[in-house]
Amino acid sequence: RFGEVEETDLVGVVTGLAWTEVGGELLTIEAVSMPGKGTFAQTGKLGDVMQESVQAARSYVRSRSVTFGVKPSVFEKRDIHVHVPEGATPKDGPSAGVAMCTTIVSVLTGIPVRRDVAMTGEITLRGRVLPIGGLKEKLLAALRGGIKTVLIPKENEKDLAEIPDNVKKGLAIIPVSTVDEVLQHALVCMPVPIEWEESEEVTEPKVAKEADTSGSGVVTH
Amino acid sequence: RFGEVEETDLVGVVTGLAWTEVGGELLTIEAVSMPGKGTFAQTGKLGDVMQESVQAARSYVRSRSVTFGVKPSVFEKRDIHVHVPEGATPKDGPSAGVAMCTTIVSVLTGIPVRRDVAMTGEITLRGRVLPIGGLKEKLLAALRGGIKTVLIPKENEKDLAEIPDNVKKGLAIIPVSTVDEVLQHALVCMPVPIEWEESEEVTEPKVAKEADTSGSGVVTH
Amino acid sequence: RFGEVEETDLVGVVTGLAWTEVGGELLTIEAVSMPGKGTFAQTGKLGDVMQESVQAARSYVRSRSVTFGVKPSVFEKRDIHVHVPEGATPKDGPSAGVAMCTTIVSVLTGIPVRRDVAMTGEITLRGRVLPIGGLKEKLLAALRGGIKTVLIPKENEKDLAEIPDNVKKGLAIIPVSTVDEVLQHALVCMPVPIEWEESEEVTEPKVAKEADTSGSGVVTH
Amino acid sequence: RFGEVEETDLVGVVTGLAWTEVGGELLTIEAVSMPGKGTFAQTGKLGDVMQESVQAARSYVRSRSVTFGVKPSVFEKRDIHVHVPEGATPKDGPSAGVAMCTTIVSVLTGIPVRRDVAMTGEITLRGRVLPIGGLKEKLLAALRGGIKTVLIPKENEKDLAEIPDNVKKGLAIIPVSTVDEVLQHALVCMPVPIEWEESEEVTEPKVAKEADTSGSGVVTH
Amino acid sequence: RFGEVEETDLVGVVTGLAWTEVGGELLTIEAVSMPGKGTFAQTGKLGDVMQESVQAARSYVRSRSVTFGVKPSVFEKRDIHVHVPEGATPKDGPSAGVAMCTTIVSVLTGIPVRRDVAMTGEITLRGRVLPIGGLKEKLLAALRGGIKTVLIPKENEKDLAEIPDNVKKGLAIIPVSTVDEVLQHALVCMPVPIEWEESEEVTEPKVAKEADTSGSGVVTH
Amino acid sequence: RFGEVEETDLVGVVTGLAWTEVGGELLTIEAVSMPGKGTFAQTGKLGDVMQESVQAARSYVRSRSVTFGVKPSVFEKRDIHVHVPEGATPKDGPSAGVAMCTTIVSVLTGIPVRRDVAMTGEITLRGRVLPIGGLKEKLLAALRGGIKTVLIPKENEKDLAEIPDNVKKGLAIIPVSTVDEVLQHALVCMPVPIEWEESEEVTEPKVAKEADTSGSGVVTH
Ligand SMILES: [Ca+2]
Ligand SMILES: [Ca+2]
Ligand SMILES: [Ca+2]
Ligand SMILES: [Ca+2]
Ligand SMILES: [Ca+2]
Ligand SMILES: [Ca+2]
Ligand SMILES: [Ca+2]
Ligand SMILES: [Ca+2]
Ligand SMILES: [Ca+2]
Ligand SMILES: [Ca+2]
Ligand SMILES: [Ca+2]
Ligand SMILES: [Ca+2]
Repeated sequence: RFGEVEETDLVGVVTGLAWTEVGGELLTIEAVSMPGKGTFAQTGKLGDVMQESVQAARSYVRSRSVTFGVKPSVFEKRDIHVHVPEGATPKDGPSAGVAMCTTIVSVLTGIPVRRDVAMTGEITLRGRVLPIGGLKEKLLAALRGGIKTVLIPKENEKDLAEIPDNVKKGLAIIPVSTVDEVLQHALVCMPVPIEWEESEEVTEPKVAKEADTSGSGVVTH
Repeated sequence: RFGEVEETDLVGVVTGLAWTEVGGELLTIEAVSMPGKGTFAQTGKLGDVMQESVQAARSYVRSRSVTFGVKPSVFEKRDIHVHVPEGATPKDGPSAGVAMCTTIVSVLTGIPVRRDVAMTGEITLRGRVLPIGGLKEKLLAALRGGIKTVLIPKENEKDLAEIPDNVKKGLAIIPVSTVDEVLQHALVCMPVPIEWEESEEVTEPKVAKEADTSGSGVVTH
Repeated sequence: RFGEVEETDLVGVVTGLAWTEVGGELLTIEAVSMPGKGTFAQTGKLGDVMQESVQAARSYVRSRSVTFGVKPSVFEKRDIHVHVPEGATPKDGPSAGVAMCTTIVSVLTGIPVRRDVAMTGEITLRGRVLPIGGLKEKLLAALRGGIKTVLIPKENEKDLAEIPDNVKKGLAIIPVSTVDEVLQHALVCMPVPIEWEESEEVTEPKVAKEADTSGSGVVTH
Repeated sequence: RFGEVEETDLVGVVTGLAWTEVGGELLTIEAVSMPGKGTFAQTGKLGDVMQESVQAARSYVRSRSVTFGVKPSVFEKRDIHVHVPEGATPKDGPSAGVAMCTTIVSVLTGIPVRRDVAMTGEITLRGRVLPIGGLKEKLLAALRGGIKTVLIPKENEKDLAEIPDNVKKGLAIIPVSTVDEVLQHALVCMPVPIEWEESEEVTEPKVAKEADTSGSGVVTH
Repeated sequence: RFGEVEETDLVGVVTGLAWTEVGGELLTIEAVSMPGKGTFAQTGKLGDVMQESVQAARSYVRSRSVTFGVKPSVFEKRDIHVHVPEGATPKDGPSAGVAMCTTIVSVLTGIPVRRDVAMTGEITLRGRVLPIGGLKEKLLAALRGGIKTVLIPKENEKDLAEIPDNVKKGLAIIPVSTVDEVLQHALVCMPVPIEWEESEEVTEPKVAKEADTSGSGVVTH
Repeated sequence: RFGEVEETDLVGVVTGLAWTEVGGELLTIEAVSMPGKGTFAQTGKLGDVMQESVQAARSYVRSRSVTFGVKPSVFEKRDIHVHVPEGATPKDGPSAGVAMCTTIVSVLTGIPVRRDVAMTGEITLRGRVLPIGGLKEKLLAALRGGIKTVLIPKENEKDLAEIPDNVKKGLAIIPVSTVDEVLQHALVCMPVPIEWEESEEVTEPKVAKEADTSGSGVVTH
């Protein structure tokens, strides 16, 4: 059934965790990539914050693409579409950031995502994982949905004290603080970085040996 | 009369099923394709959710186009227009997803759609068919409109218990869980896949033999 | 006087019929075409439904352009502007679809429109003519305005029973069910189809001999 | 003073006539043209109807540009900006259409506009002049502002009965029904048409000798 | 301090005069230009009227660029950004037009603006200076802010009767009616016009010797 | 923990200072740059004023890019994304201008930002630093968050009188009036300017020896 664990590890399909007024829920996030001109679509009745979250996830992957074995030019030659069923249900908030990031890496590398891993966490442009709300409801939903491993933000580790024991026994709960850790747990294997030389037209500015910090008087009181 | 079964199997014309406050209704969905630059138009007073549903249907077809015998470049060289008459009637919701998908495949392959098949179901970017509401009203409308076969989401199969016997006798009701099944029942014949080599500039990242999952301590309680 | 029958048959000028709260009215629809990049403008305080109606009319003509003797590339090399005077009067609804279609064919082929023909009817992307409302008021306006022939949707033929005899005597009322019929009555002569080979890059997918319809079990009750 | 007759005949400056709640007013309309990419800007707090009116004026001039001695390619190589001071005053309505048309022809041909001519009238895409409201107030404003000649729509000629004699004595009031007539009175000299061959790729569809009007039965009662 | 007279004559920095509910205020207007594709940005919480005013200023400069020694192609090869600090304060109205014009000419020519000159006035596309409101408050603000010379619209000269003597003694108040006059007072030196031949593809339509003004009967009463 | 001092000096990560109704807060501002077409994205639920502030920061850096050792063409060949976590928190106001400017210079030059420096101040297109509000709350937040040095606008220096002594002892508070001063304190080293010749097509207008300021009579009273 949709909204529960998939039967096989799939490329571009990630399980997020949503908080709603009636409890937590599994949130399936899908992406496909196709030959195109670099357009990026996102659908599924996503609110402004979630849309910006997807944009940030994409920029993070773009800015570190060689680490993921993806040539930067791929972002101008393939179109990507991220969709979050069920299409009539409004979704918002930044906490699907790590899942968005994972689905984009998966779809661009072709590496499947472990089907029994769920995740929650805001991401920053630098790949840090920020804390989220509704941890308890999200973990309960994961347990109910057949998930085995849940990735949570390191800064939410302190909230585990309030989680019922049966939930903590039934799930492997892994605190993470970077997207790299997320990918190591979520992808069935890690991508191999590539070498890539940016065309020489893009500047590499020289830097002075030492900055002059004496230009303006320091005022201390 | 419009809103009833067509007289011949047509290319790009699919019968969907809509739920309205006064009962179910047949929803004719039309598509045409023409030489152009890859634009995609959708009209018929479609709400946001239905528009996103059409976008998802298109991306699904694009991402699997070779399976349908369609070169990916077709999406940059032909314009597609999807229209849902009657133009003054507002329409919304994700349940026309499978019909949208079918009309796009039909119009791009030139394969006609069986005129006596109607369908309902949300689709995902991966081609899964998700459950819908208003099954009873939709089946009644199909029967009234002269439809012989109705494709419904597998997850709605359980709702058939509540459907009157005369409806179940008058219609072949086929539960489906993927777009492939939808197409096998809806198209007069199946498209033949093609071979297609993406230009080598698009990366094929190598993957490491095994992912390192030991990077961050697993917390279980 | 504007809003009455023109003095000569003109290219790109078609008489539609509008329904308003104070009765029917002749609706002059104009189009011009000029060398450009394929832009398409529509003005005259048109509501969303009428704008979508014009888009559908355009796509219909584009998708069948060779039938009308118009090379598909024309739609990328000429700009078209459709305008509905009087510019301060709001207009909406889908019933001007057949008139929009006729004006576009006229302006692209250079074939004049019979000045004493008026028309009403929604069109679909496949060139079907759908029924409209306000038939009585529209026919009265046509008679008042000096029109000799009115094209109405075939599905509205049943409404003729309620039309006063003097109106039915004063007008040739022609029920039509396709755009082809509309053009045969409205244009002073019919365009001659051309041969046109789409560049080979656009796919012609092969189709299998027979579709496999046995993939999923049929449920009948 | 601004809002009165200019001191010399200028290129691209036309005097329109506005109706406001406190009486008529001269409306100076300005245009400039510059090397560019064919953009078209309009400013001066113009309402939607007036903006569409300017678009229609532009399309009329484009569609007949060779008649005005202007190569069609000019519309892709020069940018045009139409502005209506005073910038803080909202303006709307279609009655400045003929003035918009005149200013565009003037700025593209370099032919100055007679400074003592004012004009009012909606235009259609075919260059017809449609009637306007507020004739009396507009004529009074023209007289007050030092105008010698006013061009009014032919269909407003009947309203002259209500205009005070001193106004009719003080102004040459010229009813016009086409843009050509407007230009003959407003420009200091008429442009000379050019020959221009559209590239052969643009179709010239052949037309059949005679249209078949027998396709659908005529219903008369 | 910001909002008072600068210490040196700067390129692209002009002092405007704003009227607010609590009195007049100096309005610093800044522009920079950089290699690009001809984009034009304007920021500083500007209302619609002020934005249109900036557009008009730009088109005026573009349409007369050779007079200012600026090749027309510069407008397609350099990006311009006009900003009005303080960014959190809403600004609107057309009276900064002459200042906008001056800052654009300054930044494109590299000629500094006299730091002790302030100015107010709407401009038209033809470079005329139209009257503004709030003259008294604006002059008081100029005096307070250390300004020596204020350029005001010629049509506001009559309002000087109501200005206190100390203000008139403390400021050189220069009525201007054209942008040329503005620039002569505001720039530290005037730009030298260049010769520039527009590519021959842009038409130079011939004009007839004399216009035919006899086409339609003149009605005088 | 996020929202406190970073552990190392990072490229493209700057600490701003926000004022909220419940006190001051550290505001982490992030930027990444990647090969692209020169697009510029900004996310993090930023209000209109803050978005314009980022645009102004970008234009300032672009207009002086050679001073920062960055070729102007970089702005057409690299995409930049500025993001302000936490994504669900609305942010607005111009006071993050200097931080935005610093993050853009850092990400384009690859020079890290000192992790123990925070900053606040509006910037202008000319690189001036304008005063801000909420100084006391912002300084308290900086102290709490482990910041060692805070850059404040020179015009806010007078407000230091109201700041508690322990805050002034715990922080090096540096008043700055230009972006250059900001960068000298915030970057770990200063970029080295480059030589760059703009293509000759961009005009360098000649200027007349002396401006004629006698064109219009000076009115003094
Ligand atoms: Ca659900
Ligand atoms: Ca969320
Ligand atoms: Ca219906
Ligand atoms: Ca639906
Ligand atoms: Ca009318
Ligand atoms: Ca209608
Ligand atoms: Ca006025
Ligand atoms: Ca008007
Ligand atoms: Ca101020
Ligand atoms: Ca103002
Ligand atoms: Ca926080
Ligand atoms: Ca702020």
